[in-house]
Amino acid sequence: MGKHTWTDRPSDILRVEKGAALDAVAPDSTPGFSGDKAAGEAQLKARRKALGELQERLFAGSRAGEATDAVLLVLQAMDTAGKGGIVRHVVGGVDPQGVELAAFKAPTTEELEHDFLWRIEKRLPQPGFIGVFDRSHYEDVLIGKVRGLAGPEEIERRYDAIVEFERRVAASGIRIIKVMLHISPDEQKERLAERLDRPDKYWKYNPGDVDERLRWNDYMAAYRDVVERTSAPEAPWSVVPANHKWYARLAVQELLIDALEDIDPQWPKADFNVEAERKRLAAS
Amino acid sequence: MGKHTWTDRPSDILRVEKGAALDAVAPDSTPGFSGDKAAGEAQLKARRKALGELQERLFAGSRAGEATDAVLLVLQAMDTAGKGGIVRHVVGGVDPQGVELAAFKAPTTEELEHDFLWRIEKRLPQPGFIGVFDRSHYEDVLIGKVRGLAGPEEIERRYDAIVEFERRVAASGIRIIKVMLHISPDEQKERLAERLDRPDKYWKYNPGDVDERLRWNDYMAAYRDVVERTSAPEAPWSVVPANHKWYARLAVQELLIDALEDIDPQWPKADFNVEAERKRLAAS
Repeated sequence: MGKHTWTDRPSDILRVEKGAALDAVAPDSTPGFSGDKAAGEAQLKARRKALGELQERLFAGSRAGEATDAVLLVLQAMDTAGKGGIVRHVVGGVDPQGVELAAFKAPTTEELEHDFLWRIEKRLPQPGFIGVFDRSHYEDVLIGKVRGLAGPEEIERRYDAIVEFERRVAASGIRIIKVMLHISPDEQKERLAERLDRPDKYWKYNPGDVDERLRWNDYMAAYRDVVERTSAPEAPWSVVPANHKWYARLAVQELLIDALEDIDPQWPKADFNVEAERKRLAAS
Repeated sequence: MGKHTWTDRPSDILRVEKGAALDAVAPDSTPGFSGDKAAGEAQLKARRKALGELQERLFAGSRAGEATDAVLLVLQAMDTAGKGGIVRHVVGGVDPQGVELAAFKAPTTEELEHDFLWRIEKRLPQPGFIGVFDRSHYEDVLIGKVRGLAGPEEIERRYDAIVEFERRVAASGIRIIKVMLHISPDEQKERLAERLDRPDKYWKYNPGDVDERLRWNDYMAAYRDVVERTSAPEAPWSVVPANHKWYARLAVQELLIDALEDIDPQWPKADFNVEAERKRLAAS
């Protein structure tokens, strides 16, 4: 990434393993990227082609029945932190035929009758796909903990269950990218206020958002625990400063590119006789 | 659409109701659009914003629990006609969070144990979404007929079943846009040959494509029957000339815009007290 004004790879510089490390990430910083907003937006556009070609190779490899690799991007954040913008501007730059998007809301009655990972398992990406989770099983140890929807023992059980689950998912060929978009409370206040100022944004506003906001410190503590308990080499957490939307998008784009470059998917070889097919086609 | 160099609305000019009308559509024509390729590509880009805003309104309306409208784009075509390009370049211009894409392959053993519409019903778009079917229930009366996978009586039953199914789907609030991308056999030959010339395209080539190609006339006859038997005011067929990829993309984009403008989705009103929320937020 030496070119493109990244001074460090986001997959290195944004990785956190210890809960306390969360406090060291400034939401309004732009680590590893030396450019400004205009440079960042130009970069986002410029890197779309690289991401798109990697995604197409990944997809092609799986269609030929050879490769089992896939990518899973898990997005977690406080309200207004920009998950939607990541999906729209980063994931949206990729061929929709290669993307499986799952937005997890409050669990349904049926989902609540199963273990919390039941609905997650069903939405894991198939080989060749980029799966994106807009919220995820981490809600069950975030709002689940902050709101006391589960007791302390159950929360402990869930951390362990998540680690085992993600280990199995990774072993099946899915690269896991876990992202916490990190905004400041002041930035959230401004974004919520904007939703209240614009009638075309009312639908995005929910009075419950303020209730959650009032528990900001509890949520940050829950995130620290999540990072501490569920970081693993095969399923690392990246904490992405997100006060600057352009930076967060750029960083997540680069995390996706890094994961795909690591897979290094190749165009599959022909499983037919090219010359013979040329003749058949010519005669048709 | 008087602006934007369309002389007629694609939803009018491309509509067919009688099977014989298929023969009157020249695959290399660009009906209703007065510009060339460069103008068409510029137009596709320029109209993305209109499509995107309509989609966001559609989505917003459903999130507020008010509207039940949705859109379903059904794509049918001979191989290489450009379904993938439509998904990538037209649907890909829309926020992925508002799109539900279903690519129907040869039915699985489980799917074959059910009626042919069973797997289709499950993939209908939810309110607020744009659903896209890459192939569909029409395969069951196209390849199903040409390859004799079902007998003549069963094919007849399916036409009737489709008409009733689509009537119910439309009544539930889903606008149905059925598109046949229409290419010429010569154009297909060129496109298949290109896949055999480029190692990065091998994965898209299937020797079976030539087998189907040899039955071109049977497929056209089957498409004529489909148009004849399943055209309905609430589920019309559009035959889109597709030798020029740029034209087909532009036309389908406009069909989507027309359907959305017809729905005319509105930003939902606030279901909370805006002023009271401003105060709560300020105090938080």
